[in-house]
Amino acid sequence: MNSYQRTIHLADTDAAGVVYFANIFVLCHEAYEEALARSGMNLKVLVSPSGIALPIVHSSADFLRPLFCGDRLEVQLTPKQLGETEFEITYQVLSLTTPQITLARVITRHVCINAANRQRSPLPEEILRWVSG
Amino acid sequence: MNSYQRTIHLADTDAAGVVYFANIFVLCHEAYEEALARSGMNLKVLVSPSGIALPIVHSSADFLRPLFCGDRLEVQLTPKQLGETEFEITYQVLSLTTPQITLARVITRHVCINAANRQRSPLPEEILRWVSG
Amino acid sequence: MNSYQRTIHLADTDAAGVVYFANIFVLCHEAYEEALARSGMNLKVLVSPSGIALPIVHSSADFLRPLFCGDRLEVQLTPKQLGETEFEITYQVLSLTTPQITLARVITRHVCINAANRQRSPLPEEILRWVSG
Amino acid sequence: MNSYQRTIHLADTDAAGVVYFANIFVLCHEAYEEALARSGMNLKVLVSPSGIALPIVHSSADFLRPLFCGDRLEVQLTPKQLGETEFEITYQVLSLTTPQITLARVITRHVCINAANRQRSPLPEEILRWVSG
Repeated sequence: MNSYQRTIHLADTDAAGVVYFANIFVLCHEAYEEALARSGMNLKVLVSPSGIALPIVHSSADFLRPLFCGDRLEVQLTPKQLGETEFEITYQVLSLTTPQITLARVITRHVCINAANRQRSPLPEEILRWVSG
Repeated sequence: MNSYQRTIHLADTDAAGVVYFANIFVLCHEAYEEALARSGMNLKVLVSPSGIALPIVHSSADFLRPLFCGDRLEVQLTPKQLGETEFEITYQVLSLTTPQITLARVITRHVCINAANRQRSPLPEEILRWVSG
Repeated sequence: MNSYQRTIHLADTDAAGVVYFANIFVLCHEAYEEALARSGMNLKVLVSPSGIALPIVHSSADFLRPLFCGDRLEVQLTPKQLGETEFEITYQVLSLTTPQITLARVITRHVCINAANRQRSPLPEEILRWVSG
Repeated sequence: MNSYQRTIHLADTDAAGVVYFANIFVLCHEAYEEALARSGMNLKVLVSPSGIALPIVHSSADFLRPLFCGDRLEVQLTPKQLGETEFEITYQVLSLTTPQITLARVITRHVCINAANRQRSPLPEEILRWVSG
């Protein structure tokens, strides 16, 4: 359920001929959004101005191989709860053209906050369910 | 064959709460790339440094309704040859949540050039085949 | 006052070696934001959820020459009121390396709406002042 | 010399109302490009298909505070050589509106490769000079 397939588009690349490094983070965030949507969550949870927000407080990536326009890949993600207000996702970016090849490994760490005052807030039930999925 | 379905991701939006206008052009270009790929073309045709290139020389868009994070939509595209070295694509961006609703209409006009000297060059056979569909 | 200078960054380009077409629209929108800021306006006007919004309803571009990573350019913009609720901006994208060379011509048409109900609303005083410059 | 000032534009933000996390990496890469350019380097060094390339193999970020549309900020960067073929840059993203406030801390690690065969290659003289600046 927590996997996402995607083709690399021209907009993902740069004039060095491969995917621009920051776009790997975008790709992984897309995989996270698709996983939330498939678990039944409304993506408005990410942008609701009145309720909670789930900003990323830390992220890292190891870029192991270049990705090219037209490449087909799969992102596999694994969420893990880190506390009452925090969770982390690890992503494996794999080639679909040459399976078993890991192209990148990415981590994002998210905290739950009250969007109005930006104070930490417990993770909502539906996120907890997905994280412990 | 020339339709493409897509979910709006957080990265497509801006702080006004809807999709940032320039990202509608990105979305339509993705639909064009997917259509080329499905017609059997290698997307390397778009980036080959030694061969031809197909730069966009004109583009326009009418933005009829706002698009929100999580929205599901379909892009329907219709290519048309304009001459020996030129073609145009029109795109209808439709809501999948509320079918029959057109969200945007976009046009891109492409010329075929020799990538080395940037002079006009006849459209290659495989592009002509796709354009005359 | 309504001109904006900018270097082309790697993120603006794609694997075809030049600026990705949709990023010319981004570049022009930056020029518009800088012009508003320099006229004394708070850019929060663009994103305020309670007040008005100024969405783009139409945009077009003619891409005359390719732009490369590292190129220095200038965007000159000219706003024009179209009615009580609408204005249009035309942009000339010029090379700073080779002045007198126009690289692209872009248009954006903006309407003023009430952000809550998305109905048309008269242009606010500060926008009118900038538009009639 | 290794500092870069920038306004946050609408395109940098997302519908959660703040800068989209991956765009902080873009911002830091812009600062790196400007620093190279100011040290006299031609940015073509980043994209030359015949020569060397400097891909990023690792990157991380701590996002300490949200950034909003219209915010003015400064990126201070510090390069450090890690070996014959590798260097690392650390970036402090600071608020210009409220100095002394660090908004984010970012790291990028770059290796020098032969762009044709993607094998490691010694850092070129001009990069070494900038790194040991």
